[in-house]
Amino acid sequence: MSRVTSRRKAVLVRAGAPSRPKRETLAGEEPLEIRVNGKPLAVTMRTPGHDFDLVAGNLVSEGFLGQQHDLATMRYCAGKNEDGEQTFNVIDAAVIGLDPASIAERKVVTTSACGVCGTTSIDEVRRQSRFGSQTAEVRVQADVLLDLPDRLREAQKLFDSTGGLHAAGLFTIDGELLCAREDVGRHNAVDKVIGWALREGKLPLRNTVLQVSGRASFELVQKSHLAGIPIMSAVSAPSSLAADLADEVGITLAGFSRGDRVTLYTHTERVEVAEDLVTEGVSA
Amino acid sequence: MSRVTSRRKAVLVRAGAPSRPKRETLAGEEPLEIRVNGKPLAVTMRTPGHDFDLVAGNLVSEGFLGQQHDLATMRYCAGKNEDGEQTFNVIDAAVIGLDPASIAERKVVTTSACGVCGTTSIDEVRRQSRFGSQTAEVRVQADVLLDLPDRLREAQKLFDSTGGLHAAGLFTIDGELLCAREDVGRHNAVDKVIGWALREGKLPLRNTVLQVSGRASFELVQKSHLAGIPIMSAVSAPSSLAADLADEVGITLAGFSRGDRVTLYTHTERVEVAEDLVTEGVSA
Repeated sequence: MSRVTSRRKAVLVRAGAPSRPKRETLAGEEPLEIRVNGKPLAVTMRTPGHDFDLVAGNLVSEGFLGQQHDLATMRYCAGKNEDGEQTFNVIDAAVIGLDPASIAERKVVTTSACGVCGTTSIDEVRRQSRFGSQTAEVRVQADVLLDLPDRLREAQKLFDSTGGLHAAGLFTIDGELLCAREDVGRHNAVDKVIGWALREGKLPLRNTVLQVSGRASFELVQKSHLAGIPIMSAVSAPSSLAADLADEVGITLAGFSRGDRVTLYTHTERVEVAEDLVTEGVSA
Repeated sequence: MSRVTSRRKAVLVRAGAPSRPKRETLAGEEPLEIRVNGKPLAVTMRTPGHDFDLVAGNLVSEGFLGQQHDLATMRYCAGKNEDGEQTFNVIDAAVIGLDPASIAERKVVTTSACGVCGTTSIDEVRRQSRFGSQTAEVRVQADVLLDLPDRLREAQKLFDSTGGLHAAGLFTIDGELLCAREDVGRHNAVDKVIGWALREGKLPLRNTVLQVSGRASFELVQKSHLAGIPIMSAVSAPSSLAADLADEVGITLAGFSRGDRVTLYTHTERVEVAEDLVTEGVSA
């Protein structure tokens, strides 16, 4: 059985028509424990598949990794479930030059980031990017940007028969797909794309656009920031804090990207429209 | 300024038409630190509003609370941001009869739930519900169930001008709305509803249906389980593990609830269709 999806009996209930049994394909979801240098860091619920990409990307998002050569090896820990099968649900990543104490510290930081009363603000939950703020003079044509949701869906069609998977796609500024990944968790889909890029030696991702299938939260903008991505576009709405962070760190944030229209929230100068069409800029 | 939403300048880019500036309303997103008996437990990114409900519901979902009288008080910790304003982003909950060590232990549990290689499975990430599995002989009419997404959207219209908020609604089995809550995070929306119920003294929620605006993940089914909710319905797809858990703990799980049709995945016997319509049951 594939672990990316699973089949299940169900009943379709319809208004004014007989109910009938059907078989449904559901998106797989299993826990993955991420260990760094043998120490447990986190457990995430994810769709199995591209697990090494997920772990690498998660470690970039957590600030542990920025370069391919920092990541020595990754391996599934041996172990069996009650049926005697290897679970493939625990991965240990060997990260070079990491202070063992920093893993324990990070746990504390992520669970008490706002530890000092009254200083709770964007600064405390924010991670510093080793690549700095975005100052790249990269430009993307509006037509290319508008086309990305469709291109991501095309890539997703190959996998998604469940209607239950989020997708993230990394594109060149010319709209060429570099990598698409899916997951029940939208954070995981983005981590898988970023982890792929790290393992390919492509960080920082200076000349790329990240397209996501859902909403743009603070955490997704932060992941883009830590990977050096200058332009992020979402099919649905951004949050206020996502726009605030994008504004501050120099990321162009687009939302409600629906094929014929897209809304730009920050650093609009990176999106170029055809010469005969007027654009007015915004200041936040 | 309301912290539930915020206004921001943006640019609307359209295919084949001039771009134009517009003002957008974005869903608010800020970090909330949850403390239990003075000790930091977690930080969650949430939409401000109904914060006490969120904290109470989170503590139910984490297994710390099951009854109204276990929760002595909740208060915002004093503190100011750089502008001298109270942040309202740290809440301390006083929980009665809680071993202080259990808070530290829980942190360990949630970050190393799969600590023993090879035993990573649904059992390790699962929390025990103090209300046990669902054996209630509660029944809901199919027409009522089909109607819930629309009723939730009606309640949501009052608040959501952003297109960026998830919603959760708790209904009686007759379809009467008890409580609707919104958040940028779908887990938070459910926690807010469950927290409301705890504070109203309504746990366990034996005769209710929980309707959510998005997908049904393992964690949302687990939250329903810990609150004693027998029927959960999602507008979008469930994951495989969500269905597995619902099956095991006796929850009726519905998905793709779209007004004229809904798919039942587990414990279908709780949904009654009109007498002249045939239903065939499923066994998982």
